[in-house]
Amino acid sequence: MNSIVILGAGNVATHLYSVLQNSENTSVIQWYNRKLDRIQSVQNECLITDDLKALVEADIYIIAVSDDAIADVSKNIPYQNKLVVHTSGSVSLHDLDKKHQRGVFYPLQTFSKDATIDFSEVPICLEVDNKTNLPLLKTIAQSIGSPYYRVNSDQRAALHLAAVFVNNFTNQLYRIGHEITESKSVDFDILKPLIKETAKKVETLSPFMAQTGPAKRNDKKTIKKHLKSLDKDIHKDIYELLTKSIKQTHGKKL
Amino acid sequence: MNSIVILGAGNVATHLYSVLQNSENTSVIQWYNRKLDRIQSVQNECLITDDLKALVEADIYIIAVSDDAIADVSKNIPYQNKLVVHTSGSVSLHDLDKKHQRGVFYPLQTFSKDATIDFSEVPICLEVDNKTNLPLLKTIAQSIGSPYYRVNSDQRAALHLAAVFVNNFTNQLYRIGHEITESKSVDFDILKPLIKETAKKVETLSPFMAQTGPAKRNDKKTIKKHLKSLDKDIHKDIYELLTKSIKQTHGKKL
Repeated sequence: MNSIVILGAGNVATHLYSVLQNSENTSVIQWYNRKLDRIQSVQNECLITDDLKALVEADIYIIAVSDDAIADVSKNIPYQNKLVVHTSGSVSLHDLDKKHQRGVFYPLQTFSKDATIDFSEVPICLEVDNKTNLPLLKTIAQSIGSPYYRVNSDQRAALHLAAVFVNNFTNQLYRIGHEITESKSVDFDILKPLIKETAKKVETLSPFMAQTGPAKRNDKKTIKKHLKSLDKDIHKDIYELLTKSIKQTHGKKL
Repeated sequence: MNSIVILGAGNVATHLYSVLQNSENTSVIQWYNRKLDRIQSVQNECLITDDLKALVEADIYIIAVSDDAIADVSKNIPYQNKLVVHTSGSVSLHDLDKKHQRGVFYPLQTFSKDATIDFSEVPICLEVDNKTNLPLLKTIAQSIGSPYYRVNSDQRAALHLAAVFVNNFTNQLYRIGHEITESKSVDFDILKPLIKETAKKVETLSPFMAQTGPAKRNDKKTIKKHLKSLDKDIHKDIYELLTKSIKQTHGKKL
């Protein structure tokens, strides 16, 4: 049984607490947060504290606080040579204080506060500065049913950047779809099966092979009609730029 | 039993042929295509022809040919006052010859050649110039298990435009994610659960509510780091423009 201390009480921390506490091979023995009220509800399940000096000894400390606070929190863990990991996609492993054994346990997924998370759909990207710590991180990923991948810092940065494209930017395209349909009093729901199928398609087909539409066909008539009918300048700009990108990818003359 | 003639043999036509031929309430009595070899395989199931003059009488003619060919094909159907519909998102109903009863039967979904299609996930957008024809189109949509929506021309155009954003442009963002991960020898598969969850999230949450990430948080440090690490200028441009769009949507100072 691996003993764990979790630090932080945001979305990632909260979901990790639940899944780790309910896993057979792991036990969260303490939960730290700067504000106690956020974690008060679990005080009968484990130790809770708002004081880093009161941290107990554990096999691993998982820091799931905001990116900017990671360095500071790690410095104030009152132990040395313990395995301390953070869960961020973009923070360097070296932001963790060097008195620790350091690692990263980065769940590459979007977490909503209320939704329950199926951790078999949460790939964990693992990074360590001392590879003897890798087995413990793997064991923890396995115990919550998550696929895991060892990556280096460059690869983690690339994944975090790619995630912005396929998650934040994609969601903004959904938002624009919502604005366009709403402007003509059409139910956005009509688009939802298409949104789902577009995501599903790339499970078995590369995005390159999955592409269709006026930009790929270089269908100038439709492109012109679309640009004309967009009300907002920024939507026109996005339409033009992504059309250009698709043409470049598929070798059409610009 | 409604008798149907299908015209064209692209992805939409082929999938419509299969589902309509297997539905209890509809019967495809003839399939027309300019090239006979594309439809030869069904010659024991229905009439096939490559000659518009040889079209038989039917309750409805479904034209699923390329956008540019719709007007011409409709003109050459050798009957008058028959219900003739096309399946295009962007072509006007008035492109159909006015000797016909005219309509649109637009399936708002992405069709792959080989994949089987679950028509319960294919919303059909219906348009008619004479509303007495609406019940027949509804019956056909129902018989293949598809949800249907009556829309006007403006609304159909808006849906087609929005579909480019949530399907073609989203797929291009997946492609960029693929390029970014590949450039660091990371498996694109790691991103697939995130792609799936991003699409799933907007089934119950508006895209506005679902947004997260550095642009929404106005996390300048991460944005700067991401821009610096992008190799291709067009990827930088897309990153900047979609970040600007997210900031505008969420009221951050630009």
